[in-house]
Amino acid sequence: MASDRELAIFEAAIKLGALYHQFVGTPVSRMSAASIEAAIEKAVILQPYVEEITVRLDRARMTENIYGYSELAGLMFDVEIVTRVGFAYCRARLAPHDGYPLMSIVE
Amino acid sequence: MASDRELAIFEAAIKLGALYHQFVGTPVSRMSAASIEAAIEKAVILQPYVEEITVRLDRARMTENIYGYSELAGLMFDVEIVTRVGFAYCRARLAPHDGYPLMSIVE
Amino acid sequence: MASDRELAIFEAAIKLGALYHQFVGTPVSRMSAASIEAAIEKAVILQPYVEEITVRLDRARMTENIYGYSELAGLMFDVEIVTRVGFAYCRARLAPHDGYPLMSIVE
Amino acid sequence: MASDRELAIFEAAIKLGALYHQFVGTPVSRMSAASIEAAIEKAVILQPYVEEITVRLDRARMTENIYGYSELAGLMFDVEIVTRVGFAYCRARLAPHDGYPLMSIVE
Repeated sequence: MASDRELAIFEAAIKLGALYHQFVGTPVSRMSAASIEAAIEKAVILQPYVEEITVRLDRARMTENIYGYSELAGLMFDVEIVTRVGFAYCRARLAPHDGYPLMSIVE
Repeated sequence: MASDRELAIFEAAIKLGALYHQFVGTPVSRMSAASIEAAIEKAVILQPYVEEITVRLDRARMTENIYGYSELAGLMFDVEIVTRVGFAYCRARLAPHDGYPLMSIVE
Repeated sequence: MASDRELAIFEAAIKLGALYHQFVGTPVSRMSAASIEAAIEKAVILQPYVEEITVRLDRARMTENIYGYSELAGLMFDVEIVTRVGFAYCRARLAPHDGYPLMSIVE
Repeated sequence: MASDRELAIFEAAIKLGALYHQFVGTPVSRMSAASIEAAIEKAVILQPYVEEITVRLDRARMTENIYGYSELAGLMFDVEIVTRVGFAYCRARLAPHDGYPLMSIVE
């Protein structure tokens, strides 16, 4: 049987994997980034065991294509999520690390 | 060669197909629907040739799963888009029709 | 610090969340289901720490729309994944449970 | 009212927009690219009015991340689709053009 701590880890990772692949590819610009951040946060907070979620998209990486916008890419994400199962919490993160959008357990 | 009118039609359809498959599956509830609507509108308006976009998600179809939320499904979309190429416009729509999320040219 | 066991759990869950939201909404029929299963398996096995992945899509749920096809929905998935970090393994599953596409740790 | 020719254009564009945003972000490598190509083709051919679809993913753009794989990106796509409505056909394409994944009407 998995412990509450393990379940909290499991649930945090599901959400990170899910939001990444749900939203990658979305057209985005510096002007619209805040609305995407809000939409992702509001979508994730609905899901079971999520206590907190913060999504920050890196505007500096939003280089414009010939039509003046960009697409949401993995390296733009800086996400922190806190899940809780029973009395156990997991804080996990999605952020660039060595050029890779790394998901990791913070605590 | 395609006419401006044909190009406006082409561009409208690209955007409808794109937004559908980008956002289907997103966790959603009646409380968060407005933020998803805004995010979709702001993502689509960035794209070339788009003049107007209105996204309305049908709250009545957001039946809750055992965790109290729903997932964005094709039949929830009611979208109208206007594209322009040169002096030609296309108004197109994505809305339920006979139980199918139909995309059609309005004018 | 997270243990290898916890990391294996974390990695398994990332992959389940990711594949779900990447592929939900894909047009599918009983004829094409095998090609989607193969594509998902080959996409997931590329990712770090994945040892095994089996994807089975429930043909019985592929009810045809008026154009004779269906869309990949959460309840169609039956997926088992094994991840390994160091000497620790995690076997996890995505399958319907009480009408919800549940992701769970098997062992 | 739209002509058959206009409808064929509309339908081709829907499919290009849809497949792009459905599959962008999928983990891919040179070894697995053929299975993704097949899955996309089999998903698109199910949809109404599609006569032909060819998907070619550019292996040369599949540069490996630190874990040895890549993610399906817009510029990797080279897709040709033929739709038919009544006696009218549309051939359209998705391919890189000036560093942008351009969708265009071929004939």
